[in-house]
Amino acid sequence: MNDKQLVALRAAQYVQNGMLVGLGTGSTANYFIEELARLTREQGLRCTTIASSTISTQKAQSLQLPIVALEHVASIDLYVDGADEITPDKTLLKGRGSDLVKEKLLAKAATKFIAVADASKLVNHIGQNFTIPIEVIPFAWQMAKKSLEALGGVGDLRPNAAKDGFWITSHGSYVLDMRFDASIDASTLNAILNNTPGVVEHGIFHQLADVILIAQDGVVSER
Amino acid sequence: MNDKQLVALRAAQYVQNGMLVGLGTGSTANYFIEELARLTREQGLRCTTIASSTISTQKAQSLQLPIVALEHVASIDLYVDGADEITPDKTLLKGRGSDLVKEKLLAKAATKFIAVADASKLVNHIGQNFTIPIEVIPFAWQMAKKSLEALGGVGDLRPNAAKDGFWITSHGSYVLDMRFDASIDASTLNAILNNTPGVVEHGIFHQLADVILIAQDGVVSER
Repeated sequence: MNDKQLVALRAAQYVQNGMLVGLGTGSTANYFIEELARLTREQGLRCTTIASSTISTQKAQSLQLPIVALEHVASIDLYVDGADEITPDKTLLKGRGSDLVKEKLLAKAATKFIAVADASKLVNHIGQNFTIPIEVIPFAWQMAKKSLEALGGVGDLRPNAAKDGFWITSHGSYVLDMRFDASIDASTLNAILNNTPGVVEHGIFHQLADVILIAQDGVVSER
Repeated sequence: MNDKQLVALRAAQYVQNGMLVGLGTGSTANYFIEELARLTREQGLRCTTIASSTISTQKAQSLQLPIVALEHVASIDLYVDGADEITPDKTLLKGRGSDLVKEKLLAKAATKFIAVADASKLVNHIGQNFTIPIEVIPFAWQMAKKSLEALGGVGDLRPNAAKDGFWITSHGSYVLDMRFDASIDASTLNAILNNTPGVVEHGIFHQLADVILIAQDGVVSER
């Protein structure tokens, strides 16, 4: 069993009968979904799921997990998802994919949000290994970019896979991949991005994770 | 000449040759657009405009004002628009209509944002006379509403004109019309709303207005 699978299984121990559980997206989240299905099948676990993406919807459906729509729900019990970076103060960087908006909604709406990762995701500060993905309204991208540049941001629109246009998220946004000076702490950066008109959502998950589970060399620890 | 027209004409005195000027939406903003057209026609003023709505686009086009698209621009020189409420600390409540997102973009992108109103718009605190319009992603409305209710907000989705469905903004959002306790200051409320996932934009324009022009009984004063 690899570290991603190990940490996913640990997170599944938090699931109790009757819970409404948010499903993350990505390789570690996939192990969690598979474990939920196994517990349902083999141990009679009864839970309802809600997906953060079409990928996780399809995964849950293929495993016959009960699933409800995001728009029908005001809160959830538990959300389990991976992260691209995790800092000592439990700030996460997420959203290298295309479902940032739903991921942050679920993280905020969850009574408990458990972030799961292997130790390679631990960093000292947000933006250490990756640029910060910032979803912007297409007609606002130039204004939002200039506004962020005035605050020291450097970056550009994310190109699409074919490099002949721009990346579009599931919410229909463009993505600005930006770097900021490491001296700007996550709390300040979070507030700056939230306060920038034209920014739909961004990849800094600040003070949202309740539990961080990290797997390293076959051992899971809680941060 | 009524007070709205008077204050619009005063704002037009800020327009200089070569400026890129953002056009607000509403009765006072309309007087401003008409005055820009008159100055262009009669006094040879040369400026380019950028509209906050389809209404103001049509108005500018009908008056032959040069107009450029929001998405082609990173900043503008001047933005002139009305407001529904104006507090002593220059916080505005705007966006009773359907173009909140573009209005806030222009307000933020403008080197100078002049808010124009008659004295009936002066209030002691934001939300005194109106609910606060909060644009939310349709699939997120229940989560956003619950999140705002947890902070003391009271309100509901804005119905459409026929009362047989819900109001949709030009950005495709729903609107939550919410009241908050008057003890929550505008700065805090602004931060709360910016920090709520699913909220696209909201009607509190905090620290954005550079100049406030108020007309009362035929006299314009600057706040």
